[in-house]
Amino acid sequence: MPLILVTNDDSINAKGVHELIRVLLKIGEVVCVCPEMPQSGMSMALTVNSPLMVKRLEDYHGAKMYKVNGTPVDCVKIAVDNLLERRPDIVVSGINHGSNAAINVVYSGTMGAAFEGCAYGIPSIGFSLTSHDENADFTPCLPVVENLVKLTLENGLPEGVCLNVNMPKGYAEYKGIRVVKGCKGRWDDHYVEYTDPARRPFYWLAGKYVNEEPENTNTDEWCLANGYVSVVPVLLERTYPNLSEFKWISDK
Amino acid sequence: MPLILVTNDDSINAKGVHELIRVLLKIGEVVCVCPEMPQSGMSMALTVNSPLMVKRLEDYHGAKMYKVNGTPVDCVKIAVDNLLERRPDIVVSGINHGSNAAINVVYSGTMGAAFEGCAYGIPSIGFSLTSHDENADFTPCLPVVENLVKLTLENGLPEGVCLNVNMPKGYAEYKGIRVVKGCKGRWDDHYVEYTDPARRPFYWLAGKYVNEEPENTNTDEWCLANGYVSVVPVLLERTYPNLSEFKWISDK
Repeated sequence: MPLILVTNDDSINAKGVHELIRVLLKIGEVVCVCPEMPQSGMSMALTVNSPLMVKRLEDYHGAKMYKVNGTPVDCVKIAVDNLLERRPDIVVSGINHGSNAAINVVYSGTMGAAFEGCAYGIPSIGFSLTSHDENADFTPCLPVVENLVKLTLENGLPEGVCLNVNMPKGYAEYKGIRVVKGCKGRWDDHYVEYTDPARRPFYWLAGKYVNEEPENTNTDEWCLANGYVSVVPVLLERTYPNLSEFKWISDK
Repeated sequence: MPLILVTNDDSINAKGVHELIRVLLKIGEVVCVCPEMPQSGMSMALTVNSPLMVKRLEDYHGAKMYKVNGTPVDCVKIAVDNLLERRPDIVVSGINHGSNAAINVVYSGTMGAAFEGCAYGIPSIGFSLTSHDENADFTPCLPVVENLVKLTLENGLPEGVCLNVNMPKGYAEYKGIRVVKGCKGRWDDHYVEYTDPARRPFYWLAGKYVNEEPENTNTDEWCLANGYVSVVPVLLERTYPNLSEFKWISDK
């Protein structure tokens, strides 16, 4: 039986992770280690200057359940380093309530956990549904999750690569699964300004995503707009490959 | 006069950012927007589900100073979106108290800010000194910062690429500046277990970095061990380039 580590960024109370656990119990032994509090937008943040508390909860349909007062990366680290009796065969993060397509991959706590699994050399996948509804219908996602987790357990992933899987809301069934690149785009964001009761200003982030290549059919955003599941293989490595372009810097 | 946005992850009170500001005032107009509290290990975390407070402080040697109750990414966003009167010519983050070489680049709040500048299309650099001492001697770093910021203002950076610059401690003068890749390695980490007064366990992250290619002279870790400044050009893009390796996934 494969050992499956489950985590997320929407917290142990989110519907998405409970749906995920139930489908993964068909494939293997499941241990779920999730943040106690929502951690959206936490990227690969980890807790270094304060301690973590871990609480074992009641089993859920046979899955062991823990909550941690930390980030998604903390959950993966403490699970692999302390809580699990053996190294997991796969790390599965999600199902996120909201898209992690395009540039969102860099901010996503869901994908932060997947990148951390990848840093351990464990095949890792983040799953997201493009709905922020806390009661979102994950039913169409479940066969996709089952299929991709089984395929990944069979095939493995290249070293340093994990998968960012996004699924569009509002479909009873998807048109297919496509391996594509993260769409080029940016957040056209701004801060809405408020005044607190003591007349001090405060600010809340708002904005909308601008797709900079809407005609490109080989992007995750295209898939999501057209009823397909997008799978973007993503790299943990950060070094730009063409170092020779920087001759103007080196003095040796 | 170029407009230089300065930020960091060690907070507005850190010595490193004050040293950085003073050297950058030789090059341009400086606005500093830093986290109110230390944000080490915050990666590209951003605040989406709560508001930000911004406080203007007294000018420092002619630089405008602001503190924000958020992450390094929040500081860059609110500076560019709200606080600055024009788009900055460069974002400079640091000087970090501690190394951000090798795998640390993915967790670093210092580099989170640089990646965010990069997401806006602004040339961005993160500087770090390999000393956690809060009174560290940044003197040898200052000519490096001045040189690299001037060169980057002149030459620009490729789209989607920013620079991760690390400088070793304990040198009065560096042997040179080298453009290299991030070293391959991992944190061999574990959690030290404690018991709180109510007899509940808590955990603190500990560990040591394991260099997996100590003989490779073209890495940042090699530079730092041998008296050189390392410059690693790093990518915001996450998509793995060889999508054709994933034919086992696509069903269309």
